Amino acid sequence: MHQATTMLKVQTPSRGLVEITGELQAWTGRQGMQTGLLTLFCRHTSASLLVQENAAPEVRADLEAFFDRIAPEDRGLYAHDDEGPDDMPAHIRAALTSVQLSIPLIDGCLALGTWQGVYLFEHPPPPASAGRRDRIAGRVMACGLKQGY
Amino acid sequence: MHQATTMLKVQTPSRGLVEITGELQAWTGRQGMQTGLLTLFCRHTSASLLVQENAAPEVRADLEAFFDRIAPEDRGLYAHDDEGPDDMPAHIRAALTSVQLSIPLIDGCLALGTWQGVYLFEHPPPPASAGRRDRIAGRVMACGLKQGY
Amino acid sequence: MHQATTMLKVQTPSRGLVEITGELQAWTGRQGMQTGLLTLFCRHTSASLLVQENAAPEVRADLEAFFDRIAPEDRGLYAHDDEGPDDMPAHIRAALTSVQLSIPLIDGCLALGTWQGVYLFEHPPPPASAGRRDRIAGRVMACGLKQGY
Repeated sequence: MHQATTMLKVQTPSRGLVEITGELQAWTGRQGMQTGLLTLFCRHTSASLLVQENAAPEVRADLEAFFDRIAPEDRGLYAHDDEGPDDMPAHIRAALTSVQLSIPLIDGCLALGTWQGVYLFEHPPPPASAGRRDRIAGRVMACGLKQGY
Repeated sequence: MHQATTMLKVQTPSRGLVEITGELQAWTGRQGMQTGLLTLFCRHTSASLLVQENAAPEVRADLEAFFDRIAPEDRGLYAHDDEGPDDMPAHIRAALTSVQLSIPLIDGCLALGTWQGVYLFEHPPPPASAGRRDRIAGRVMACGLKQGY
Repeated sequence: MHQATTMLKVQTPSRGLVEITGELQAWTGRQGMQTGLLTLFCRHTSASLLVQENAAPEVRADLEAFFDRIAPEDRGLYAHDDEGPDDMPAHIRAALTSVQLSIPLIDGCLALGTWQGVYLFEHPPPPASAGRRDRIAGRVMACGLKQGY
């Protein structure tokens, strides 16, 4: 059994769900992996990983609206606002979802269901910050295990 | 180190938490695994995996009631309702829990705590749909790694 | 590829987020692991694992306050209160976060981001129970895979 590790850089808008399924399939394909486990780890505290419905775009908007409702950008709610009123909502959203995701590989493919896509979920950036987008720009680490070499 | 992969089919009621610990133990037992890692991945967008208390049945009812409170089946809340008013609540519940779970194997047993069970969590199906139950019927994929062959 | 497994015992206060990053680095270091995957599994139903911001202490207080808001210790809300009014809130918090966490190892280090720490999240214990603290005292299991022996 062998392993391959990489750092994936993902271009993201300032916030929201960005599908990365294609990039993951491409990378595992280049590794020649057939059976194994792909583990993703998001190295940021204001982004996370999610498996979600990949067909209707309203699902993504509704998900964002849901997280806005339960973890609103309301300065009065949080003691921590070093980077603005959206700082704690981002950490809470990361806690409620996950920064880690492992997906089995079968016959060289990610074993996702028909309607499943893998998403990087960027949480709200500060209102007037151009620089931060890079900092949370969703580098994802993939540690893949492959068999039979 | 070797791997074994299977698709587990789980019979579920229309919604709720269904314990699958026994089926997982049986499968890993048949593989002769001693030390390793069992990774489960639920290939549906309206079901997820959960480790929970396996003694008091009220825990399961209280958990479902909690998710009904924070992600209610209220058509006015969501833009996405292709499959009925319960469609988005199901996606939200899947986002708040997880479709993936990895459990270490030690001495041939899942390393669960005394009061822990593994559950497939079926999220609400559409009110008058007989066919959907199959679609979300909790196939769980297990990718187990075993040592020492 | 080899594996190592251990049971980590973590001293925790009665509730809250306790950083365990140092203990994890020390253990993986002793194993001589270079590239691989560290999987943690919390064997309790009233504690969980979280990757969070490790700089500002207010983040931890705000996170606890958030979970107090969405899963309050209100006896009227839950049927299950065998161990007091905080019993179900603890199970709900465990369901919303996770009892499992896998972190890639690269060049002998946990591949965490600059601002990420690994936390054991102890959920509220019963008000007047001295004994329970041990029961939920955050034993964490680490199943590490290492390469190249």
